[in-house]
Amino acid sequence: MSAGAIFVWELLGTATLILLGNGVVANHVLRKNNGHNAGFLFINLGWAFAVFTGASIANPSGAHLNPAVTLGLAIADKTEWSDVPFYVAGQMVGAILGAILCWATYKLQFDDHPEPENTLGIFSTGPQIANTAWNLVTEIIGTFVLVAWILLSPSFKAGDAGVPTFGNSALGYAGVSFVVLVIGASLGGPTGYAINPARDLGPRIAYAFVLPIKNKANANWGYSWIPVVGPLVGGAVAALLYLAVHNLT
Amino acid sequence: MSAGAIFVWELLGTATLILLGNGVVANHVLRKNNGHNAGFLFINLGWAFAVFTGASIANPSGAHLNPAVTLGLAIADKTEWSDVPFYVAGQMVGAILGAILCWATYKLQFDDHPEPENTLGIFSTGPQIANTAWNLVTEIIGTFVLVAWILLSPSFKAGDAGVPTFGNSALGYAGVSFVVLVIGASLGGPTGYAINPARDLGPRIAYAFVLPIKNKANANWGYSWIPVVGPLVGGAVAALLYLAVHNLT
Amino acid sequence: MSAGAIFVWELLGTATLILLGNGVVANHVLRKNNGHNAGFLFINLGWAFAVFTGASIANPSGAHLNPAVTLGLAIADKTEWSDVPFYVAGQMVGAILGAILCWATYKLQFDDHPEPENTLGIFSTGPQIANTAWNLVTEIIGTFVLVAWILLSPSFKAGDAGVPTFGNSALGYAGVSFVVLVIGASLGGPTGYAINPARDLGPRIAYAFVLPIKNKANANWGYSWIPVVGPLVGGAVAALLYLAVHNLT
Amino acid sequence: MSAGAIFVWELLGTATLILLGNGVVANHVLRKNNGHNAGFLFINLGWAFAVFTGASIANPSGAHLNPAVTLGLAIADKTEWSDVPFYVAGQMVGAILGAILCWATYKLQFDDHPEPENTLGIFSTGPQIANTAWNLVTEIIGTFVLVAWILLSPSFKAGDAGVPTFGNSALGYAGVSFVVLVIGASLGGPTGYAINPARDLGPRIAYAFVLPIKNKANANWGYSWIPVVGPLVGGAVAALLYLAVHNLT
Repeated sequence: MSAGAIFVWELLGTATLILLGNGVVANHVLRKNNGHNAGFLFINLGWAFAVFTGASIANPSGAHLNPAVTLGLAIADKTEWSDVPFYVAGQMVGAILGAILCWATYKLQFDDHPEPENTLGIFSTGPQIANTAWNLVTEIIGTFVLVAWILLSPSFKAGDAGVPTFGNSALGYAGVSFVVLVIGASLGGPTGYAINPARDLGPRIAYAFVLPIKNKANANWGYSWIPVVGPLVGGAVAALLYLAVHNLT
Repeated sequence: MSAGAIFVWELLGTATLILLGNGVVANHVLRKNNGHNAGFLFINLGWAFAVFTGASIANPSGAHLNPAVTLGLAIADKTEWSDVPFYVAGQMVGAILGAILCWATYKLQFDDHPEPENTLGIFSTGPQIANTAWNLVTEIIGTFVLVAWILLSPSFKAGDAGVPTFGNSALGYAGVSFVVLVIGASLGGPTGYAINPARDLGPRIAYAFVLPIKNKANANWGYSWIPVVGPLVGGAVAALLYLAVHNLT
Repeated sequence: MSAGAIFVWELLGTATLILLGNGVVANHVLRKNNGHNAGFLFINLGWAFAVFTGASIANPSGAHLNPAVTLGLAIADKTEWSDVPFYVAGQMVGAILGAILCWATYKLQFDDHPEPENTLGIFSTGPQIANTAWNLVTEIIGTFVLVAWILLSPSFKAGDAGVPTFGNSALGYAGVSFVVLVIGASLGGPTGYAINPARDLGPRIAYAFVLPIKNKANANWGYSWIPVVGPLVGGAVAALLYLAVHNLT
Repeated sequence: MSAGAIFVWELLGTATLILLGNGVVANHVLRKNNGHNAGFLFINLGWAFAVFTGASIANPSGAHLNPAVTLGLAIADKTEWSDVPFYVAGQMVGAILGAILCWATYKLQFDDHPEPENTLGIFSTGPQIANTAWNLVTEIIGTFVLVAWILLSPSFKAGDAGVPTFGNSALGYAGVSFVVLVIGASLGGPTGYAINPARDLGPRIAYAFVLPIKNKANANWGYSWIPVVGPLVGGAVAALLYLAVHNLT
């Protein structure tokens, strides 16, 4: 697959992921919404099927949608290292675009919101209790589960286009959405399960520099590196585990 | 497939969709129901699996159930333009029939309802904050995601009967129901995610002209064109995107 | 398949269905339970995946689990009329057995329940607003959707053993569980969606004549024929629709 | 498959299962979590998809993850008796490791928890109403449903590696997760559905002897044998049923 095609498919899939993932939080947070205060399970389900929808769309490029997945696949020798920059670029641009589309969907609700300085949480994650080391641990463990499952799942294999895939099936990506659902429910309590550097950093950039929300809060840049580094470490550790065990029979 | 068969299958599938989709809202809204006040996730799940059920039934005609889907497929050259009127006619008649069946299911609850002038929301959508331009944007984005997913999903292909299909599998339509679930949860806050002209206009006609609910409200005709035009625009834009990118490799 | 095998497989599948279906209501209704007051969506999900579990187990006999399904399949010429009595006998005995197993699971909770005369609703359905004609309409429509979906679903076909089946797949019965989920959410408000004579009558018999619950209420025999006749009518109408349309192309 | 490989795959799968299963309860129980008080359905969904995730990872060894499943498969002649110790050892070590990873994920929340003596329920089950005989009955019935479904499900067959499997599909284990979901919702009210000796005993050992939670409660060893013996009996009875009926045609 050409570098340009990788960029486009990852951009489209990640924009869909972030539009829908940020959207479900906006629906929950902002008053004057049908889903106002619908709860954490509602948010988990939204993110889970956001992954399903975005991953189906990005199937031609292998549906990474996540630099931690791309890194893990590269370490596991499933993705060319030379393709990695194009994957990550598509993911970052897509994430920023998705955040903008989420804002447009909820534009009237953002204008109505009485505390616009509280809106960062719609776009990017933050800790319930701030602590650099343990917040990193939580993000590492969550991403480890995601990437370990992707690499070890019995349905993961090389696809027609030379990129690993879950098969040419509408339901092939339901599996990964179930995994993201349970990571959210089970490991998302302390830090909001970024488990994806693009998912967190792209919308944070959009929030800070692009979106015309008035009275915005600062974008909490002090925390912003944790949901980047933690997922990258978790994805790398999962790939090393895969290399150690996948031939055990 | 004959024009008459298209009409019948789309009618049956859309009637099922609307019976079940309007039904879950009736269950939530009307007191003296087991599902009274069961919440927005409950409604999202009801509509999602209403799509699954109706689409499975309408599989022989490709299970459009939605003029915005039919338009998108025609632009993408997946459906004959000459068949479009028969698809839309079946969808509209089916939607009206489904709304009538919903009313019959909940007839005792409608009679018991203390504010019958509030029952339009069971059948048709309305905005949380009325604003022509931004309500259109929300409906365009929601329908764009639906039709883009249908066209780009790896399992979408030409079926045996010459109509596009998700395959001869009971679970082939689970994918589209997951997408409708997340569109509802993630993009349904501001306008109630019509994302389908027939789903909104058919029941509105039934409410205004057919159903014997006493003390009905007016059918909010001033808003009624937005959930028609928005979805058609969204479906068309998705088809144009499909034409632009689907051969990128 | 032999008459005895039909009886055994339908008994096992229906006992599993009723154990799990009655069980989720017991969990919701009886205090001193982890799922006390967990809500109607919780109950809908419990019944839906009770169908999945019971139907997978009864796969060899075609997994009817429901006299209305058996009747519909016989009218549609998918099941031998001479086998019908063995299907229904297995379903009824299984339903009674399942209700007894549910009671055993929750024995301590039944003993603790302060209003044992309110426990009929764990086992059998009743209307929110009693009205013979309209309660029948609700049950007819709900069962019609179930049996129409089974007959028209693209994955329904004759199985290896000469009985119709959803295929030799662990997930083949997920489709019918999604349909039962949405029937519950969308059409279960007024009458509690019996949609199955054995599911309602078997546990009612167990409640009235077998279970050692003290201070039991009467078993509401005056209503008991509605969730028998309504589903049978709905299943028959669905089969007639199937015969009328299934060759339309 | 070698004994060492069985040990490793069962360890990895069970550690994932327990990390996610204990995690969802931690998210619900401990304040300062996004999922605080999210409810029993939230917990049921977490455990269900914890099984999906862990079972997918342990696919090479047949994904038992549970001594009651291993025992049932051995009685049903699907697993070699000589392999049983390696399955159970991997499950127990994995369960202890998963509990430790859950603690690390929620370390800050454990430190913040005002009643650390109440944290046993995050790791291990206990009865709502204590009664040896009936608590055993509840655990026996729940595990019976799980193991009977596994053995009788149409998709269960011998896999490539000589171990029974649900097929080389990412979604093959969705079926068992649906069954665990409904067992939790329908049978989990009285005792919290251990239905797995390793799932209960491993984390109890971690809680009692490993985890640095201050002011821990005692580990309720008086109850601890019930979620071991009950599941083993339930699994054995299910295997005997399987042997009695599986050739009935």
